[in-house]
Amino acid sequence: MKVVRDPVHGYIELDKLAISLIDTSPLQRLRRIRQLGFSNLVYPGANHSRFEHSLGTMHLASMLTEQIEASEDDKNELRAAALLHDIGHGPLSHVTEDLIEKYTRTKHEDVKSILKKEEISGICDEHGLSISNIADHIMGKTALGQIINSEIDVDRMDYLIRDAHYTGVAYGIIDHIRMIHKMQFHENRLVVTEGGLNAAESLLVSRFLMYPTVYFHHVSRIAESMFNRAVEELILNDKLNPQRLRRMDDSQIFEFLRNDDGYPGEMMRRINERQLYKRALYAGFESVDENVLKQRKHIHRIEKEIAEDAGVEEKEVLVDIPRLSQIEEMNALIRSNGKMLYLDQASHIVATLENAHRDNWRMGVYTPKEHREKVKKVAESFFDLKKQTRQYKLTDL
Amino acid sequence: MKVVRDPVHGYIELDKLAISLIDTSPLQRLRRIRQLGFSNLVYPGANHSRFEHSLGTMHLASMLTEQIEASEDDKNELRAAALLHDIGHGPLSHVTEDLIEKYTRTKHEDVKSILKKEEISGICDEHGLSISNIADHIMGKTALGQIINSEIDVDRMDYLIRDAHYTGVAYGIIDHIRMIHKMQFHENRLVVTEGGLNAAESLLVSRFLMYPTVYFHHVSRIAESMFNRAVEELILNDKLNPQRLRRMDDSQIFEFLRNDDGYPGEMMRRINERQLYKRALYAGFESVDENVLKQRKHIHRIEKEIAEDAGVEEKEVLVDIPRLSQIEEMNALIRSNGKMLYLDQASHIVATLENAHRDNWRMGVYTPKEHREKVKKVAESFFDLKKQTRQYKLTDL
Amino acid sequence: MKVVRDPVHGYIELDKLAISLIDTSPLQRLRRIRQLGFSNLVYPGANHSRFEHSLGTMHLASMLTEQIEASEDDKNELRAAALLHDIGHGPLSHVTEDLIEKYTRTKHEDVKSILKKEEISGICDEHGLSISNIADHIMGKTALGQIINSEIDVDRMDYLIRDAHYTGVAYGIIDHIRMIHKMQFHENRLVVTEGGLNAAESLLVSRFLMYPTVYFHHVSRIAESMFNRAVEELILNDKLNPQRLRRMDDSQIFEFLRNDDGYPGEMMRRINERQLYKRALYAGFESVDENVLKQRKHIHRIEKEIAEDAGVEEKEVLVDIPRLSQIEEMNALIRSNGKMLYLDQASHIVATLENAHRDNWRMGVYTPKEHREKVKKVAESFFDLKKQTRQYKLTDL
Amino acid sequence: MKVVRDPVHGYIELDKLAISLIDTSPLQRLRRIRQLGFSNLVYPGANHSRFEHSLGTMHLASMLTEQIEASEDDKNELRAAALLHDIGHGPLSHVTEDLIEKYTRTKHEDVKSILKKEEISGICDEHGLSISNIADHIMGKTALGQIINSEIDVDRMDYLIRDAHYTGVAYGIIDHIRMIHKMQFHENRLVVTEGGLNAAESLLVSRFLMYPTVYFHHVSRIAESMFNRAVEELILNDKLNPQRLRRMDDSQIFEFLRNDDGYPGEMMRRINERQLYKRALYAGFESVDENVLKQRKHIHRIEKEIAEDAGVEEKEVLVDIPRLSQIEEMNALIRSNGKMLYLDQASHIVATLENAHRDNWRMGVYTPKEHREKVKKVAESFFDLKKQTRQYKLTDL
Repeated sequence: MKVVRDPVHGYIELDKLAISLIDTSPLQRLRRIRQLGFSNLVYPGANHSRFEHSLGTMHLASMLTEQIEASEDDKNELRAAALLHDIGHGPLSHVTEDLIEKYTRTKHEDVKSILKKEEISGICDEHGLSISNIADHIMGKTALGQIINSEIDVDRMDYLIRDAHYTGVAYGIIDHIRMIHKMQFHENRLVVTEGGLNAAESLLVSRFLMYPTVYFHHVSRIAESMFNRAVEELILNDKLNPQRLRRMDDSQIFEFLRNDDGYPGEMMRRINERQLYKRALYAGFESVDENVLKQRKHIHRIEKEIAEDAGVEEKEVLVDIPRLSQIEEMNALIRSNGKMLYLDQASHIVATLENAHRDNWRMGVYTPKEHREKVKKVAESFFDLKKQTRQYKLTDL
Repeated sequence: MKVVRDPVHGYIELDKLAISLIDTSPLQRLRRIRQLGFSNLVYPGANHSRFEHSLGTMHLASMLTEQIEASEDDKNELRAAALLHDIGHGPLSHVTEDLIEKYTRTKHEDVKSILKKEEISGICDEHGLSISNIADHIMGKTALGQIINSEIDVDRMDYLIRDAHYTGVAYGIIDHIRMIHKMQFHENRLVVTEGGLNAAESLLVSRFLMYPTVYFHHVSRIAESMFNRAVEELILNDKLNPQRLRRMDDSQIFEFLRNDDGYPGEMMRRINERQLYKRALYAGFESVDENVLKQRKHIHRIEKEIAEDAGVEEKEVLVDIPRLSQIEEMNALIRSNGKMLYLDQASHIVATLENAHRDNWRMGVYTPKEHREKVKKVAESFFDLKKQTRQYKLTDL
Repeated sequence: MKVVRDPVHGYIELDKLAISLIDTSPLQRLRRIRQLGFSNLVYPGANHSRFEHSLGTMHLASMLTEQIEASEDDKNELRAAALLHDIGHGPLSHVTEDLIEKYTRTKHEDVKSILKKEEISGICDEHGLSISNIADHIMGKTALGQIINSEIDVDRMDYLIRDAHYTGVAYGIIDHIRMIHKMQFHENRLVVTEGGLNAAESLLVSRFLMYPTVYFHHVSRIAESMFNRAVEELILNDKLNPQRLRRMDDSQIFEFLRNDDGYPGEMMRRINERQLYKRALYAGFESVDENVLKQRKHIHRIEKEIAEDAGVEEKEVLVDIPRLSQIEEMNALIRSNGKMLYLDQASHIVATLENAHRDNWRMGVYTPKEHREKVKKVAESFFDLKKQTRQYKLTDL
Repeated sequence: MKVVRDPVHGYIELDKLAISLIDTSPLQRLRRIRQLGFSNLVYPGANHSRFEHSLGTMHLASMLTEQIEASEDDKNELRAAALLHDIGHGPLSHVTEDLIEKYTRTKHEDVKSILKKEEISGICDEHGLSISNIADHIMGKTALGQIINSEIDVDRMDYLIRDAHYTGVAYGIIDHIRMIHKMQFHENRLVVTEGGLNAAESLLVSRFLMYPTVYFHHVSRIAESMFNRAVEELILNDKLNPQRLRRMDDSQIFEFLRNDDGYPGEMMRRINERQLYKRALYAGFESVDENVLKQRKHIHRIEKEIAEDAGVEEKEVLVDIPRLSQIEEMNALIRSNGKMLYLDQASHIVATLENAHRDNWRMGVYTPKEHREKVKKVAESFFDLKKQTRQYKLTDL
């Protein structure tokens, strides 16, 4: 048994299985993938990697499995799954997720093909573990898999605390130890028992508050939009194979872009020197037609149209219409007095988060500083903006 | 300028005024008053005192006044008020608050008489500060006084973080620095500017979560009920003058009770040895008639009636019907785009807390372990209990 | 299995044995004994109790026993000993230690008589544990007992971290988890293995730095001297039985003193209002004759002499000549490459601490502010002071 | 005034000058340079960048300048110097330092040429600051410059706390606030006043303990040796211009190596997949001839000789003979009772650190796992090893 120091959990214990898996290239690669993409442009401390998050997730999964009944093999498969759950991520984690899904039709949780390769499958064989069970756990298709992929799972707990630790944002502090102590299986469903209700509420509120402050910060989103536009350009021009993109690490894609002498190289330079595009438009649901979400499919057409009307280059207008994400944790189950309730039935505060979360949604149109006024005018008219929406003035470096 | 180490804020600076005031007996007495009454029966670390909270409140008040425009004298008066705001507390802080108010008709914020005494008034004269202004600040009657006594004030911020630190409960972590940076005066109202909205939401949610976990933990409430009944007994029998009670510290009232050889002495012994009464009834609003709140006036009559019906001694039944406290922070003002909104208008999550907070309310009937069943039966019938309500099983030492 | 929240270790698990022991009056009494005596006069946060320290010591002892081979009964006896190791402390912990030893000839580790009483012995019988073994563990007479009472034990680890946490002084941060992981038994001696050398060095340095900053701070020492003089006065006048003193808690002795209307009452009032005596003399070894240590036996005679010469009341001169404490940790064993070494042989830095620690020693003569100059003159001549020694100017509240 | 969140200092304030400087490419580049080189191979959290360290150093420098008397311009120049002090670092910070110095004859503190470029000099002109003064401050040639570059400076304080925070190693916790409060200028020398002695001791001991645990961990050193050998190979073969190396960021040099298809590419692959060379020899001063330090000049010749004798490829033997670094802090000045002392005169504990630090020195010979035994034999004989030295078994991932 070895231990490794982790700034978030103190010490993480590693048994032989964990050490073998860690020594494979798919896991070592996660050392070179930042957890929070471009958030370090806003929070200079946010340089943490998917690797440490993977160790942390395994640590919490071990803690939870200790209090449930299952065979050693089942527990080991789950712990392996916890450790491996993020090996399907492309460079910069969530930043490239949509692009990779669009061009390779593979979700990041779909890691069967990576697991099957000799390097990992050999280790699993040696320890008598099933690749196929591990893959199913990661997809959240199994009962046990709920521990790492369900409405309330240890993956979320680890990233929330970890992101809070490295950004320095206080909101991510949750009582994960109590939370885990209060979780158990009931008829194959992972449920939170009543004593864990406050901890669960706290978890949801934390995540809710991290959205506008960290995960949806406009500076990261602008850098992300610029980066993705640049990468897509390379894909569309057959300069970059999307399957290869998926296997790259952060350095590789950064240098790939940097060595390009056209638009992609220019975008990378701008990000590196922090000469980011600016917001020409930034609007919440209250100011735009709700159908705006349907226009997500035609982003490039819209960008082209606005650019033409504003008299700027097509690629100088970036339209960013995020999905309206759900707070899945609401569907977590609470077990109280022998009855099962969904979390939003058991808690007034959780029930309200759906609407509150909608308030955090923003769409944006970004463009170089010098075109801001022109593009703003056209974009406002294009989206038939009801009134100029609030623009948060946040610090960003 | 001296500095003192504070586990919560790191270092607190003390100027001459602060040092002089700290050296007076009303402030030194606060060293001997625990901040959280009997919470240390549940959270062994919760032994912190009103004294350190007073220093912390002054520290945050100084931070806030640094960013507003006011004369040095005004600022000094406010800082003095922050330091002195709790000198009116009786032993064990909030535990004796209702009792002292009932028998002395004085609220704990009403400290004019204490300020007027030579010890403090001399210092204020010397520094050219007005006692009367300081008293008004503490009562929250002035514009500047909102900093330490209003819907969102630094008093609350300090105690929330401090209570979290000493109990070890994670929920109290708030982003108080951001909060303070985002507060300003607008037309004599202390308002939170838009960039502080998330921090304000976080503050409210924290307080909300601290209620069931710490402030309203049933073990503290049982000890509190036993203690108050014992003290009231002494007052009713003219053994203890309520004015004297108000000036006591924790040790004094503890020894006063311990030296009594009747019921009060017995209650103190039970608390000290942790042989607490148990819950015969513990019910939320959903199980009792709402008019129960009106019965707060006749507690002793009810206790007597239940005791008689259950065939136990009158003082062996303690009925605890807490007030339905308001979350005043909802009425804090948010300034956004030149408009003023109440916090519950600006935030979905805050709007819901009123109902959620109602869920935290519990009434209780407590009695020695051996009478539990008898009393339970009578009490359930007395309060016409709709159904046995949930009983949280929390750890307590 | 219950858990209790601890600000230092997060969560502490309590099994049935622990819960039963905690529910006894000797352990409940520790809630009312401050860990650091009068240190809260300097560090306002230092209000923590022996109770939480006892829980923490048991927690660390459990952690260490998990990695050694021993029977369940042996482990339980050790854990019980860890929990109970401080029940022999008098009020204010170390403050009254010398006085109690002087007048009752009992050391605080000698708790056999307390253990034998029905309350605790009954529980031990029920769990098949031997009172006598537990007592021996606490005295450090057994092999296993080294875990809680030896050169490097978990008692010291817990109080170091805990005192740092509550005072806010950074120096107490040690890597106790690594330390514990690197400890093992070798031929019935508890040894630190080589990988734990740095952690052990860090532990010693921490304790060394905590001495002048916290444990030996002159303000606590002055209050302590005043308090002890007052208590001894009561003992000498047969007003207070030293056996009774030993069983008191902080509130009891405080009120006992406060209710006295002579010198003891006056000392208590002075401490409560922080009108402490001042240093008329404060000198290190470099300025006094080394034989000064031998004069510890005649303190009262010296006080009398100085007082007479200075023309002040006898009890207005307090002479404080502390023992020259040893850093026992130096004799801890390090096991490296199959050889055993004492810690000060294995580490250059530890070897030096003995001399360095000598530098921290100070003797003091304290007197009311108004007599300072008179007493200073006489005391300097009495102790044949070579030169006026350095006087640290530290902040104290 | 903007603020940015920093996990170490909480909030860092940025005025206009700081914001302008931060927006330049030399500072933005520091976002892409890891502070601790390859330490993340041992401590997965150690991904922090020179950028945040630069902000932190400026923050502490501002704190210190607030308490000294100097003109606003002088203070601004110093703050600029604190922010810019690391812009001369090559990729991976100290990892490439020796190599860059060897081939470009430029030290990393020598940043005049970078400052002179339009981007930064323009900003300095605008704010009326002298480039030349700033460069001198960074070199530690000025009185004020001692704040950021001298025996005890804020640069060291920030990196110590920051490295501790991100590695999770407890030893780096120091009382930097007290330290700074106790520093002042005396006759143009930055001195620590007596009240800061313990804080200074703590600082030195912390750094001393961080050496074996973090800075000199053998795993980082092996990776570093492999990396440097690979980079030097590129330089010697004229594939990489050392001036260009100096301006690269981590991604650039990583990709440069990765795209090489010879030895450098192989080394990079091995580092990325953590197939590191192993220690064939690892020895302290007690086992080798002290003249070994003189052999630092002929490393490649030694490597060649050992490789030939062992029958392995030349580049498969890496010899690592580190400099015997001095603990410069010993020469910091302490001012006590009007006298000046060097820190090692004022403190027993510091006096001993020189010898203790020597104990931390290790030389190593590294080679692929499969050649370990062969190389070990030859190397032991080559260095005339007295006895096999202790090999710490530490966890590394």
